[in-house]
Amino acid sequence: MSLSDGQRSTGVVAPADHVSLRRHNLAVVLRHIRDAGPRSRARIAADTGLNKATVSSLVAELVDRGLLREAESERGAVGRPGQLVELDGRRVCGVGAELNVEYLAVTALDLTGEVIIESRIPFDAAHLGADATFDRLAGLIEQAVAAIGLRGGQTVGVTLAVPGLVQSAAGILALAPNLGWESVDIVRAMTERLQEPTYHVSVDNEANLGALAAYAEFAAADPAAVRDLVLLTGAVGVGGGVVAGGQLQRGGHGFSGEVGHLPVAPAGGRCGCGRTGCWETVVGLTALLDKATDPDDPVRDVSLDVEQRLAEITRRAEAGDERTLAALADVGTWLGLGGAIVVNILNPDVLVLGGYFGALGPWLTAPLEEAIRDRVIAPDGGGCRVVCSGLGFTAAVRGGAQISLDSVFDDPTQVPTQVGASA
Amino acid sequence: MSLSDGQRSTGVVAPADHVSLRRHNLAVVLRHIRDAGPRSRARIAADTGLNKATVSSLVAELVDRGLLREAESERGAVGRPGQLVELDGRRVCGVGAELNVEYLAVTALDLTGEVIIESRIPFDAAHLGADATFDRLAGLIEQAVAAIGLRGGQTVGVTLAVPGLVQSAAGILALAPNLGWESVDIVRAMTERLQEPTYHVSVDNEANLGALAAYAEFAAADPAAVRDLVLLTGAVGVGGGVVAGGQLQRGGHGFSGEVGHLPVAPAGGRCGCGRTGCWETVVGLTALLDKATDPDDPVRDVSLDVEQRLAEITRRAEAGDERTLAALADVGTWLGLGGAIVVNILNPDVLVLGGYFGALGPWLTAPLEEAIRDRVIAPDGGGCRVVCSGLGFTAAVRGGAQISLDSVFDDPTQVPTQVGASA
Repeated sequence: MSLSDGQRSTGVVAPADHVSLRRHNLAVVLRHIRDAGPRSRARIAADTGLNKATVSSLVAELVDRGLLREAESERGAVGRPGQLVELDGRRVCGVGAELNVEYLAVTALDLTGEVIIESRIPFDAAHLGADATFDRLAGLIEQAVAAIGLRGGQTVGVTLAVPGLVQSAAGILALAPNLGWESVDIVRAMTERLQEPTYHVSVDNEANLGALAAYAEFAAADPAAVRDLVLLTGAVGVGGGVVAGGQLQRGGHGFSGEVGHLPVAPAGGRCGCGRTGCWETVVGLTALLDKATDPDDPVRDVSLDVEQRLAEITRRAEAGDERTLAALADVGTWLGLGGAIVVNILNPDVLVLGGYFGALGPWLTAPLEEAIRDRVIAPDGGGCRVVCSGLGFTAAVRGGAQISLDSVFDDPTQVPTQVGASA
Repeated sequence: MSLSDGQRSTGVVAPADHVSLRRHNLAVVLRHIRDAGPRSRARIAADTGLNKATVSSLVAELVDRGLLREAESERGAVGRPGQLVELDGRRVCGVGAELNVEYLAVTALDLTGEVIIESRIPFDAAHLGADATFDRLAGLIEQAVAAIGLRGGQTVGVTLAVPGLVQSAAGILALAPNLGWESVDIVRAMTERLQEPTYHVSVDNEANLGALAAYAEFAAADPAAVRDLVLLTGAVGVGGGVVAGGQLQRGGHGFSGEVGHLPVAPAGGRCGCGRTGCWETVVGLTALLDKATDPDDPVRDVSLDVEQRLAEITRRAEAGDERTLAALADVGTWLGLGGAIVVNILNPDVLVLGGYFGALGPWLTAPLEEAIRDRVIAPDGGGCRVVCSGLGFTAAVRGGAQISLDSVFDDPTQVPTQVGASA
């Protein structure tokens, strides 16, 4: 998946000349090894239809740029026809950094998708304010960039994930109802704090980035079976991310997937956005906690990590606590009502539950599946499967780190060749 | 826009070799002239980045295949550097054929997008049954194909538009609640009646095809400004078609855009699908007519053309008839409630009103715009504009004809070179 879907076409379909052909084919080989795994030059030629001499030349250049290497297992047989080549994770890393209502998080991935650094701290951004939040987040990012540098790598980009409406091209967080923030020039604020970074800094909605990570999680094994995916992610707010036709779809102005404020509970409560009956008033984490706990319950303590708090809810549900189970059943019913709307409109191959929905999936999946069966007009729920993400609250930062690496997969020539490099 | 988005990727990104490079560049030139209009070889070279000798060779081949010609205005100066080339409409045509609840329709477009034949007849398919419907529709298609042949053209494809859930790859109409049909092998039934056609026959949902036509209608002038579009089309049922990122999005199993059964009126009436409160029970044409007219009103006579009947409603609204205006105001309010849901999820650049919604747009647009402003969480309704299609009830057949021509724009080499052809 590439970032280019977020950019506007000029209306002219790009033609191919011989320079762009070489760059295109470098990208084809690099992405093919990412998607299909280590393989020999002969196999790459067979898979892609490129001739063997071309593949050898392309692989040599990608090795020279530090993006591929001879596979570990067969060192000493370099150049042998059956020798496998694989992604080289040492040269470049991408970083995702999330600012959410109750926590900050950073993840760095190398080119192979391996997690190099991952951290999350409880943080009450709404009360501590934007400046303090940006300072703390910049500190976490600098730690990650420094750690990447220490292992000889280069940070190619940092993507910020935020729980609100984003104008990506302008780098603006337009509106975050659950933070009470509006029109925040977040890329500029962060770039200033990061002191003239050599890497690109961008911002996107956390559910969009989470959807990218979920797409990697569920489509990697069989891209032909999963091309359309919706992520529903539950935290204090509820976010949606849409992948259609194998591409992240941000909508015309970057505001797609705003499911948290669908009017599913007309008789419901007042929402942070000022409206009544929004979906997140009945399925957001606060709604669950209001139903399941008393105000002084330690499970509501935002100074604890959210996954610890959810582990306690899980423990209570597993122990058969009636109040907890009733609250989960109620949330499940409302989740189904809104979920069926999303499935009717988008007909995803998979509906992915992320954030707290994923963590409490054992209690939420069944009522959601039932609602999809009953309320989706297409036969058999349109073939949509409900799955739980295993990424917990790391989906957005992983998606951010992935998208930071996309520019390398789109144009490997942007990474300079290494002086005196050897495989 | 290409049909290929409906096909599943193998996961291997296509590499470019020199044969596919030539085919790719033929398609680049042909589509560029379609999208940007007649222009000189020098201008094509400048626009696309291809070199001038290559462009001359590509244009010569496309002329030889009967797809381009020297522009009319400057005949006699063939080959002069400033000579314009344009699409040649004489060689190939695409056909769209619609089967809807109250009518049958056929349109043929030539390669330039010009309408060659357009017909629509009132037809009560639900009562007359599938066999009689297919016989009549096949007759209309054969007339169109014969007319194309008489002007020396070739029919490259017929796309059937139907008001229901379609399994495109299998050629099956899975479910059409408003016809009472289920699991109909429509492509086979039509192919049999068309007696071994030399052209390709396929089927798609009418709102999907209408969305393609609406995309051509509203994105042609400025493709960079409109990449995300939703068509809401009102007839007896209500359909939705989704274009995102410049591509028609059919969803994972071809069932996207099923907005007619969104649960927007929980206290509402029984729907043809068996559920209660579906959107089309409050905004479908029957809902409008139930509110605006008595049972014996001639405006309900399905043996009259639907556009004549809507003209009569328009006349009454313009004359200030209170019952008509109250019915339109009520439909407008409900249209806004569901429309805001669609806009929150998809954030289109434009929300297009088609079918009867478009015809009665002067009374429906304002309440819809108001609902989008009030109920969409993104600032300023997410930048979504509400527009009325000028295509009336021809959107689906036009989209079908366009998609039938797409294969030529994707691979011009499928049209054989002409023996003794001259520009």
